Amino acid sequence: MASESGKLWGGRFVGTVDPIMEKFNASIAYDRHLWEVDVQGSRGYSRGLEKAGLLTKAEMDQILHGLDKVAEEWAQVTFKLSPNDEDIHTANERRLKELIGETAGKLHTGRSWNNQVVTDLRLWMRQTCSTLSGLLWELIRTMVDRAEAERDVLFPGYTHLQRAQPIRWSHWILSGAIAGNPLGVDRELLRAELNFGAITLNSMDATSERDFVAEFLFWASLCMTHLSRMAEDLILYCTKEFSLVQLSDAYSTGSSLMPQKKNPDSLELIRSKAGRVFGRCAGLLMTLKGLPSTYNKDLQEDKEAVFEVSDTMSAVLQVATGVISTLQIHRENMGQALSPDMLATDLAYYLVRKGMPFRQAHEASGKAVFMAETKGVALNQLSLQELQTISPLFSGDVSCVWDYGHSVEQYGALGGTARSSVDWQIRQVRALLQAQQA
Amino acid sequence: MASESGKLWGGRFVGTVDPIMEKFNASIAYDRHLWEVDVQGSRGYSRGLEKAGLLTKAEMDQILHGLDKVAEEWAQVTFKLSPNDEDIHTANERRLKELIGETAGKLHTGRSWNNQVVTDLRLWMRQTCSTLSGLLWELIRTMVDRAEAERDVLFPGYTHLQRAQPIRWSHWILSGAIAGNPLGVDRELLRAELNFGAITLNSMDATSERDFVAEFLFWASLCMTHLSRMAEDLILYCTKEFSLVQLSDAYSTGSSLMPQKKNPDSLELIRSKAGRVFGRCAGLLMTLKGLPSTYNKDLQEDKEAVFEVSDTMSAVLQVATGVISTLQIHRENMGQALSPDMLATDLAYYLVRKGMPFRQAHEASGKAVFMAETKGVALNQLSLQELQTISPLFSGDVSCVWDYGHSVEQYGALGGTARSSVDWQIRQVRALLQAQQA
Amino acid sequence: MASESGKLWGGRFVGTVDPIMEKFNASIAYDRHLWEVDVQGSRGYSRGLEKAGLLTKAEMDQILHGLDKVAEEWAQVTFKLSPNDEDIHTANERRLKELIGETAGKLHTGRSWNNQVVTDLRLWMRQTCSTLSGLLWELIRTMVDRAEAERDVLFPGYTHLQRAQPIRWSHWILSGAIAGNPLGVDRELLRAELNFGAITLNSMDATSERDFVAEFLFWASLCMTHLSRMAEDLILYCTKEFSLVQLSDAYSTGSSLMPQKKNPDSLELIRSKAGRVFGRCAGLLMTLKGLPSTYNKDLQEDKEAVFEVSDTMSAVLQVATGVISTLQIHRENMGQALSPDMLATDLAYYLVRKGMPFRQAHEASGKAVFMAETKGVALNQLSLQELQTISPLFSGDVSCVWDYGHSVEQYGALGGTARSSVDWQIRQVRALLQAQQA
Amino acid sequence: MASESGKLWGGRFVGTVDPIMEKFNASIAYDRHLWEVDVQGSRGYSRGLEKAGLLTKAEMDQILHGLDKVAEEWAQVTFKLSPNDEDIHTANERRLKELIGETAGKLHTGRSWNNQVVTDLRLWMRQTCSTLSGLLWELIRTMVDRAEAERDVLFPGYTHLQRAQPIRWSHWILSGAIAGNPLGVDRELLRAELNFGAITLNSMDATSERDFVAEFLFWASLCMTHLSRMAEDLILYCTKEFSLVQLSDAYSTGSSLMPQKKNPDSLELIRSKAGRVFGRCAGLLMTLKGLPSTYNKDLQEDKEAVFEVSDTMSAVLQVATGVISTLQIHRENMGQALSPDMLATDLAYYLVRKGMPFRQAHEASGKAVFMAETKGVALNQLSLQELQTISPLFSGDVSCVWDYGHSVEQYGALGGTARSSVDWQIRQVRALLQAQQA
Repeated sequence: MASESGKLWGGRFVGTVDPIMEKFNASIAYDRHLWEVDVQGSRGYSRGLEKAGLLTKAEMDQILHGLDKVAEEWAQVTFKLSPNDEDIHTANERRLKELIGETAGKLHTGRSWNNQVVTDLRLWMRQTCSTLSGLLWELIRTMVDRAEAERDVLFPGYTHLQRAQPIRWSHWILSGAIAGNPLGVDRELLRAELNFGAITLNSMDATSERDFVAEFLFWASLCMTHLSRMAEDLILYCTKEFSLVQLSDAYSTGSSLMPQKKNPDSLELIRSKAGRVFGRCAGLLMTLKGLPSTYNKDLQEDKEAVFEVSDTMSAVLQVATGVISTLQIHRENMGQALSPDMLATDLAYYLVRKGMPFRQAHEASGKAVFMAETKGVALNQLSLQELQTISPLFSGDVSCVWDYGHSVEQYGALGGTARSSVDWQIRQVRALLQAQQA
Repeated sequence: MASESGKLWGGRFVGTVDPIMEKFNASIAYDRHLWEVDVQGSRGYSRGLEKAGLLTKAEMDQILHGLDKVAEEWAQVTFKLSPNDEDIHTANERRLKELIGETAGKLHTGRSWNNQVVTDLRLWMRQTCSTLSGLLWELIRTMVDRAEAERDVLFPGYTHLQRAQPIRWSHWILSGAIAGNPLGVDRELLRAELNFGAITLNSMDATSERDFVAEFLFWASLCMTHLSRMAEDLILYCTKEFSLVQLSDAYSTGSSLMPQKKNPDSLELIRSKAGRVFGRCAGLLMTLKGLPSTYNKDLQEDKEAVFEVSDTMSAVLQVATGVISTLQIHRENMGQALSPDMLATDLAYYLVRKGMPFRQAHEASGKAVFMAETKGVALNQLSLQELQTISPLFSGDVSCVWDYGHSVEQYGALGGTARSSVDWQIRQVRALLQAQQA
Repeated sequence: MASESGKLWGGRFVGTVDPIMEKFNASIAYDRHLWEVDVQGSRGYSRGLEKAGLLTKAEMDQILHGLDKVAEEWAQVTFKLSPNDEDIHTANERRLKELIGETAGKLHTGRSWNNQVVTDLRLWMRQTCSTLSGLLWELIRTMVDRAEAERDVLFPGYTHLQRAQPIRWSHWILSGAIAGNPLGVDRELLRAELNFGAITLNSMDATSERDFVAEFLFWASLCMTHLSRMAEDLILYCTKEFSLVQLSDAYSTGSSLMPQKKNPDSLELIRSKAGRVFGRCAGLLMTLKGLPSTYNKDLQEDKEAVFEVSDTMSAVLQVATGVISTLQIHRENMGQALSPDMLATDLAYYLVRKGMPFRQAHEASGKAVFMAETKGVALNQLSLQELQTISPLFSGDVSCVWDYGHSVEQYGALGGTARSSVDWQIRQVRALLQAQQA
Repeated sequence: MASESGKLWGGRFVGTVDPIMEKFNASIAYDRHLWEVDVQGSRGYSRGLEKAGLLTKAEMDQILHGLDKVAEEWAQVTFKLSPNDEDIHTANERRLKELIGETAGKLHTGRSWNNQVVTDLRLWMRQTCSTLSGLLWELIRTMVDRAEAERDVLFPGYTHLQRAQPIRWSHWILSGAIAGNPLGVDRELLRAELNFGAITLNSMDATSERDFVAEFLFWASLCMTHLSRMAEDLILYCTKEFSLVQLSDAYSTGSSLMPQKKNPDSLELIRSKAGRVFGRCAGLLMTLKGLPSTYNKDLQEDKEAVFEVSDTMSAVLQVATGVISTLQIHRENMGQALSPDMLATDLAYYLVRKGMPFRQAHEASGKAVFMAETKGVALNQLSLQELQTISPLFSGDVSCVWDYGHSVEQYGALGGTARSSVDWQIRQVRALLQAQQA
């Protein structure tokens, strides 16, 4: 009957396979990235088959030899895809059969396609995480080198983008270096997730879960969130208004319309990629939501996400390293951006040291700020008499408060902005770098 | 001084431009898609310059002629990119200058690059939305044709995936056809957003806002949400357990391991793309969040999102059309899936018609269901006496309740599952289709 | 047998209903917001039943009277919830029955709970959209009033946060006012989505689709994206470094530690809410993804999302209105932030008017910028002789270029920053405001 | 001048503080959850001050005594909030001052509000993670108990929702139990992130980063993704069509319209919460994107996200435990759902064992499936002669293939579905449970 013979509607569909469906279904356009790990995985699997007695030694050697040839063709860009190669696994197996004949068919004994897909991706991610980890450490090393060389430069610390207290420029750099490595890509992903030494507890879960993909995408999202914040700071510091740093020409672009412009395109692109990377993480989780257990073709979405995010992270980390290593700082402007009102907290601490409870001291210092504003003078230009109308605890030694260098030296606790504390932070990060190389 | 001459850290960066930054900054790899609209936009702009007296008629003709040549080269795939062509606009302008000389430089009088970028994208999206709209209507037409041909087939309506009441198969198809067009891509996007007849109210807002991109991505996300739900239904109906429909071989794939399997890959891919498309929408909104007004390079993220989503939607709509047009339904199984307990609501209505308030009737019918379950018989096999122990209102005419065809005919209100109502829905959708073509 | 009698594991579960499940399932904690529209919907439905002959006139009057009583109890906060009232619909029906007896049971003839839920939410959103729309227009009106009063103030236009060209302060305000209303909440949502005059085309789709919720959440997300960008601008303009505007004390907070600080908390909160609102939109779409058609309990997630987003938008719009209406601008600083290099584009246009192609003129102007930087003088301090070494087209009238007021007046096209253009924008937005009230 | 005195627009704003802004700014409505950890943090901080010589022993004792009193008032619900208590920290400090006088002001020496906020949240999350971890282990324990008791039940394993191969029911349960704990909430979050023994490397980063919040929200999102997939499986298994399991009445609800319905509301709600939880994660990351370093009020968004997600996870984990512990399985239906075509892979393996390469064997088995379908018989009803037309390697011992129990026993590798492998999985998970309690 008409309605059951199918193909009665939409006359375009006359053949047995819709070419648009074929393209929609095929993954070869992007999973060819996996050629190397696919060969590597098959090599390992054939050794396993031999051990289990399912391949003879001769058959295994024949397969291994064939796989070498396949790899060679890919490496030399002579591998020719056939129209039926819908994915990298099919392509490699097809080629292997052409090269060594029927024995090729034995390679897939007891090995599902789903399994092969997920193993290849894990192998590829192990390599990628290692590369990205290296780039991340390179960025951190650049930041620490810079922090060490410039640790005597003071500039305003901001909260809410309002000038807060004087801090060391290196303190800011190190805050970024530490944030740069939220999870430690190498540690978690390589060791815990992709450690093939660990036993797969359940075969259903093994082909079905993509936690290692989701966690990679989330690591990248969180890392990009940190980098977007560092980029935002530097974009602000580059403005005419802040003028604290100057971006190298290599990382800026001019305007096609306005001759005087120099735009921080590199930093804006870094900031923007946080959205793209997070979008991939969001997309994968949405794809996974409510999926029946075991393999469903929906899971094929994992690969393009991972490939794109890996490329993006690689570029971002290298550009960020370049930006930081070539950035010029305007020492004089940094110094001039410090103003006595940023020492209002120090003024309160002065009173605390004289015995006043902090909340009262904070209020007294606030009164001094207000008095200076009202009189139109800088906070350190209030006379001792004027200060004493606020609290009799003020005396001549209050003048010691108005020294920015002295102010930052107060914060000698671990993590603080004193020279010794910043040196300690540099040593800590260097120790991490060394541990990394070991 | 060392720290201010830059480039002291990260020795890789020796030239004046970091090649990784160049690649990171360039958009030519994907914005070459825009060649046609870029030429089209420049054509219009040169006419505007002539009208404003900023180009002579001869200069305009020279430019238009040069632009024709540029377009021809792109169309014939002979356009050669130079290494400095970082985007399509630069490439076309560079080539125009080679072809017609200095006059080319006049084309960009008073026209910012930001402006050109956003105009090109709007023009491209106008074309794309028109194409996608056509594909969407093709899908809807296929569904309506099918709904019309199969309107006599009854099967279970489900809520919570539990069998609820008998409905027409066409009623299900039409629920999808209506949902397929959540916003009416053509109507909103073409007319309201991309209608260049409308006046740009504010020039700052014009280069900075990407509402037309965000709304396109959201339209696609919402459309994919509907399609993912339709795909989910069909995946379930394809299972051995439901066995209500059978997917054409053209849209299924076999298993490399299990010879008996036929997997609904096409539907699973459609379902999965909801995640990918939404991820792009999420990524763009995150990129836009907190961005300073006017142009920032972050906005460059818009294009790849739009290109990828457009490609994805195009494939999804065509594959969905193919799936629906070649799907076979198992009429017999659909009929057998109907069971008397699905008429329990009708049984309650029977009592309502005899004067019982609905809540009491619902309870009475529930008791009948429980009695049948306890006795291990079908609901329609309870004897009149048994029913009368529940309510004296039951009489001989209760037997009329047990007719599925009669049941669905009760729902004759607009939107219901009665034959007349389904016919009306078909006419409504056909009217939309015709209005579309007009 | 043990494993089939259930409840053998997890000894906590001994009763017939798990109290945690009851709470998990119940929606009364938040859907009580719907009491008024639930009564309103039931009122309408009972009239429909009477028309259809399913209720007598007397029964309808009895029900309507009872519903009035229910509404009165809610309004006077005397409505007492019983432990079994798991949602607002159950609660109202239970109470109606207590008030008028068995007739109450007739109210739900042929009306599914799913239907009632979705109708109530639509009714509630119609009210909410109307309220939010009013608040949005109030914000826009405040911005336009301000733009009108301050249209003579010039300040730097920024792109990439780099100073670009002089613009009117009102031009910036109006860019925000226009962006404030991305979709026109009132227009689309009220008229198209929630217009009950329109016929529900398909009953399956009607209880199942939540497009009106998704679109509301997306409208709110896009609106918040715009507001987050406006907030970002103002946060920057409030910094010591920009010092272009000053936030009213009513919308700032001090620091508990640093007495001199005044933080723009209101703007930071507005900026942050973009994340929260988008998160709700993302969450709903993820919940919808892959859901089988018709009603599933998953759809219950719609309500809390809508309630929270509605409250957030209401607060954000009012705070934004307050911030804009009380903001002080620093006219003098705005003027001083203008510098001659921002007229480099005008210098190029000067050459264009003398006949030079724009690209060459741009290059010539760039050379002048570089010459001024090298000499350490402002761009307008280059002598005519110096300029003539760049191009012989420079003559005495170049001095006219160095007038900021003159510069902005060039941009008289619709949407531009000339006084006349800004006035036109003000009139356009005022016309929208009036059309709104009509 | 008018425009600088502010408050000229939007007449509503007449006082010095906008009440809507006050409410918008205040967090006391939700951060009162933190009362206990706030007191705990202050207790620790006062001890630190005494050690540093900033408090005398007597002052510290006075403060500790006062804090005990504050905690007691909260615990007994007698703590009275004052209208100026905008957050929990202000409220507790205000009350402390009322109780012990000026000494209270010393408690905040050198302690910023930002710091206190983030420390409190970390302390609260340490408790919450511990609670959630306990609930998660309870769910896992329930699943393992069940897996152990029912390990002799076979049923179809599905891929793509198509019946694939026979597996043990316990194999499915264990796949969920393993997936239930993607990151190991206790391990990562408690030990690595919230371990206060670790040194804060940089004070700027410490108040500004919210990695511990983002990672908690992502852990919850990933955990919910797994639970949504388990819920999806069970919803399908509950359908009339699958009829493999039956949900306890305690976790189902009836229909207000259709007396025969029993809906798996509990599972649908679990599935839906994946969206809500992920939405919170997405919202936080979007809020963090592009934020300047150090504290910005935007960060206040962290708390409601954490509180809501914590409540949701707590409910979900308990309901899931209840669902699993009371679920009935239909053993007979599970057995009947197994069909000979699910042994097609075994048939191929039979040929492999006779020496045929797997790809050929797969093809041969596929031919047998096709032959059976064509003849309209079950796969195991093909005669030996018929099979031999496909391959001469078939002989009498092929009959051993048609035994489901024998089939599953082949998969004895770790992670497989053989009885021994399932027993091993149970032991592995039990070992984790014990390690947890130690």
